[in-house]
Amino acid sequence: MAQNMMLYWCSGSPPCWRVMIALEEKLLQGYKHKHLSFDKKEHQCAEVKALNPRVQVPTFKHGDLIVNESFAACLYLESVFKSQGTRLIPDDPAEQALVYQRMFETNNLQQKMYDVAFYGYYVPEEERHESALKRNKENLVTELKLWDGYLEKVMGKGSYLAGKNFTMADVVCFPVIAYFPRLHCPKEKCPRLMEYYEMLKDRPSIKASWPLEWLEDPVGQDTLKDL
Amino acid sequence: MAQNMMLYWCSGSPPCWRVMIALEEKLLQGYKHKHLSFDKKEHQCAEVKALNPRVQVPTFKHGDLIVNESFAACLYLESVFKSQGTRLIPDDPAEQALVYQRMFETNNLQQKMYDVAFYGYYVPEEERHESALKRNKENLVTELKLWDGYLEKVMGKGSYLAGKNFTMADVVCFPVIAYFPRLHCPKEKCPRLMEYYEMLKDRPSIKASWPLEWLEDPVGQDTLKDL
Repeated sequence: MAQNMMLYWCSGSPPCWRVMIALEEKLLQGYKHKHLSFDKKEHQCAEVKALNPRVQVPTFKHGDLIVNESFAACLYLESVFKSQGTRLIPDDPAEQALVYQRMFETNNLQQKMYDVAFYGYYVPEEERHESALKRNKENLVTELKLWDGYLEKVMGKGSYLAGKNFTMADVVCFPVIAYFPRLHCPKEKCPRLMEYYEMLKDRPSIKASWPLEWLEDPVGQDTLKDL
Repeated sequence: MAQNMMLYWCSGSPPCWRVMIALEEKLLQGYKHKHLSFDKKEHQCAEVKALNPRVQVPTFKHGDLIVNESFAACLYLESVFKSQGTRLIPDDPAEQALVYQRMFETNNLQQKMYDVAFYGYYVPEEERHESALKRNKENLVTELKLWDGYLEKVMGKGSYLAGKNFTMADVVCFPVIAYFPRLHCPKEKCPRLMEYYEMLKDRPSIKASWPLEWLEDPVGQDTLKDL
């Protein structure tokens, strides 16, 4: 069934990773894929360009249908393969409300993480300001506290972002959360999130899609050590 | 049915506006609401704080359920009131794929519009750079061309963002698109988008939720006139 799917992806990209987790959870292993090196700019290849005018990954194709935005691909997979594998969007309105809420709050966490961890990458040298980076760090610390509080609230130990079940909220957010230990963020900035990370990192869908570069270099950079 | 809904909103905020359009399309007129002045910082009131730790609008409550992220609220309303009013997410997988894709691409258009139109608002004076604003403008022009091309592709004259029907893609994107004529963006930068805007601006759900401040001051600022 997954043989008519094609995913172009870069290792470690949170948007790519979340689509890969969704594919695993929906039991769509065996999908075709092409791993592209971001550093070598392979994601700008002709195949991606032909399918994605934004020339970015993930680029995802199911038969003739193209769904490139990571949230779009995740929702599409859940909808089309609703009864297959893990149910990622619950039917109960109260559960669903929380799943959607956390799912879209993920954009805040992702952007604020990027604004610190990749500040030097996104902002040209002559436009960088210590004051901006300092503010970005403060915003990220505040954001982490918020998420830690969310987990505090829904936990029971061992619960997921939207409660007792693994849902789409976890699919889209875990790849962002995984960057905090990866970049040596001090545990005390978000102890609950770090427990959550430990609980989920060996989940089969997540392990199967673990960034190749993180396997090759398990220590990584310490960009967030002074957060 | 809508009497147990409460929306806190600011006039003209694209995230608020899209929730209001969704409410109208799902025939949920009669929902309770509170209009807050962004300029007077009324969105930071205690009522919002109690429901939304991010202290921002929209803040939306349905019974005891709180769904504040605008995309989350729109998807929640469509799911819970699926058979009521306009069907905003089609069942057909091909149609659905395109609706999701355009829906989430809206974040790009919105962010790039903000990065130009509200550059002075978001970036402190001592951190502003002509080079950054110039780049932001170029990115926005490129983004507009992309959307104009999308409409070119799906049209037939009179079609919507994801084809022949009005969908969630239009709900979430129209409030962003409306900023271009509002801020005097030259029509030739996105002629198809401007046709689309003209076609949709009098749609009942959109007219009923039109920003109050735009009614009071129909001319507006010309922030995008030199785009």
